[in-house]
Amino acid sequence: MTETIPTISDITDAPLAARLHSAIDNKTKPLGALGRLEALALRIGSILGTENPVLEAPQMLVCAGDHGLAARGVSAFPGDVTWQMVENFLAGGAAVSVLARQHGLALTVVDCGVRRDFQPRPGLVSRRIAEGTADAATGPAMTAAQCAQAIVNGREVVRALPGNALLLGEMGIGNSSSAALLLSRLGGLGIDVCIGVGTGLDAAGLARKREVLRQVLALHAGATAPLDALAAFGGFEIATLVGAVLQAAEERRVIVVDGFIASAAVLVAQALQPCVVQRCVAAHCSAEPGHLLLLERLGLDPLLNLELRLGEGSGGALAWPLLESACRILREMASFESAGVSRKDA
Amino acid sequence: MTETIPTISDITDAPLAARLHSAIDNKTKPLGALGRLEALALRIGSILGTENPVLEAPQMLVCAGDHGLAARGVSAFPGDVTWQMVENFLAGGAAVSVLARQHGLALTVVDCGVRRDFQPRPGLVSRRIAEGTADAATGPAMTAAQCAQAIVNGREVVRALPGNALLLGEMGIGNSSSAALLLSRLGGLGIDVCIGVGTGLDAAGLARKREVLRQVLALHAGATAPLDALAAFGGFEIATLVGAVLQAAEERRVIVVDGFIASAAVLVAQALQPCVVQRCVAAHCSAEPGHLLLLERLGLDPLLNLELRLGEGSGGALAWPLLESACRILREMASFESAGVSRKDA
Repeated sequence: MTETIPTISDITDAPLAARLHSAIDNKTKPLGALGRLEALALRIGSILGTENPVLEAPQMLVCAGDHGLAARGVSAFPGDVTWQMVENFLAGGAAVSVLARQHGLALTVVDCGVRRDFQPRPGLVSRRIAEGTADAATGPAMTAAQCAQAIVNGREVVRALPGNALLLGEMGIGNSSSAALLLSRLGGLGIDVCIGVGTGLDAAGLARKREVLRQVLALHAGATAPLDALAAFGGFEIATLVGAVLQAAEERRVIVVDGFIASAAVLVAQALQPCVVQRCVAAHCSAEPGHLLLLERLGLDPLLNLELRLGEGSGGALAWPLLESACRILREMASFESAGVSRKDA
Repeated sequence: MTETIPTISDITDAPLAARLHSAIDNKTKPLGALGRLEALALRIGSILGTENPVLEAPQMLVCAGDHGLAARGVSAFPGDVTWQMVENFLAGGAAVSVLARQHGLALTVVDCGVRRDFQPRPGLVSRRIAEGTADAATGPAMTAAQCAQAIVNGREVVRALPGNALLLGEMGIGNSSSAALLLSRLGGLGIDVCIGVGTGLDAAGLARKREVLRQVLALHAGATAPLDALAAFGGFEIATLVGAVLQAAEERRVIVVDGFIASAAVLVAQALQPCVVQRCVAAHCSAEPGHLLLLERLGLDPLLNLELRLGEGSGGALAWPLLESACRILREMASFESAGVSRKDA
């Protein structure tokens, strides 16, 4: 049986970091001229434990689940959009489907608890906990047992996937509310700065979302431990992603963090096992205002800033070629010596 | 015979823009959720004149030339690095070589006037004006005839290349000085805000560069027309890029603008024919401080901000997959209707 929370080791390796720094500095370019791509190369080399990193069989994992809280009008879209988008992912028409195809990312959609019976088909993994979470405004979104099961599910799904890189994606109408609640509680921030328009609330909808989330936060004032907060606020897809992050971290896969909701899963994982973040790369900074605050708490510097606010893993897929570039720079660029290029004037 | 400066038409097409907006807004995502990728899709569709844009046979054009001014110590690297890097580009070991290979960009290196005799080989085009420009601190970097010839060369090189997208790259020790001088003169900015460390000057080098460029600017106080300024400040690679930009604009190719020096070539082309910028996409914002000011003058919003300061076309190559993504979003993403996804609540 899979344990719920693995121990994630510190992978700091000063001699390897020194060799990576030296390799990058000896490439035929002025010192530091590749900017943040150099830090990215250093991080990927550190995760994979090599000066010649090769990203293999990257996996885009899109976890989907419904939210009891969605019935309270915290999203601009109706709850049915969760299952409709799962169908769209699998049919290849969603943004993440298109971008995964572009970059050769294997796409797996996990039904973590969507209110719909899906026909089995390639690319869909059924790990349903229940038909959506319970309403967090009246009680915990899930029981402790459901929360632990979702985490174990995430671990087992990742364990069965090949490759050394995992891109996080999600779908769940209402899940920017869960992410905001988790950020507020685990990040120690007032709820108002954690709330945004999500998929596009108008002013009245945003006011309603604020009011609902304040009540939910007050109802679960005692849920301060990471797993208690996760169970209280949901959702199943976030809990499954927490397990996915823990498993990928244990296996030293490169974890590509997408937007606000995927980052909230990493925040929970970090609260449980701080060293998970050593394996993470932040793909982008979302237009959802809480995301920047969340990334600051993770200590991650996002690669892209394209005002995305879609989720699904779309930002991770867009950033993916930069990770590939960072590895190729390490593997394929000439050094001053090998290319016979003169160094900077003394 | 090729005329020097073609007339670049206004490609504004309000009905096409409306159709593109509508196509983007009907994709299965919240309105605007793909952020700046949506503006990019609109721009590429507008340039190529279609709602289903396909980028074909993208060409990375790296123009190289030496600068008389380099002897005055305005760069951290010795002048020999220009020809050494041309060899490195062709051998496949430079950053732009690695990144072009990653993304399937055909790489052409143009010798516009490097102080070296190169052996002919695939990927190298010889369009030499002279063995480097003259010293701009004592006279114009080039004659008016040389300047016109370099522009014609750029036009002819692009005309011979296939495809509908051109990525601009350059190499030339000392050419951030030319770019700074062009920005100051054509952008109406004080020279100090246009100057940066280039490939990595120390404080003393930066002070020397400032002093030299102030003198050069004063010497050529009368060179206010775009072609006069280009001839006064150089270099051959920038003038060749001006021609390349004009030709690509005339053919309605998508032009991917790299860093400070490539952008300076676009600034000259814009001064000659303002509508060239309609065909341009800014790949990134460089760490060279003048670049942001230059992009503001072009009215271009950079896609990446990775603190790059390498040139070569490296930033254009890194941004390239985003252009490809924008096209695929238009071509391949489902609409709400086609995917049977519910719209936002009324």
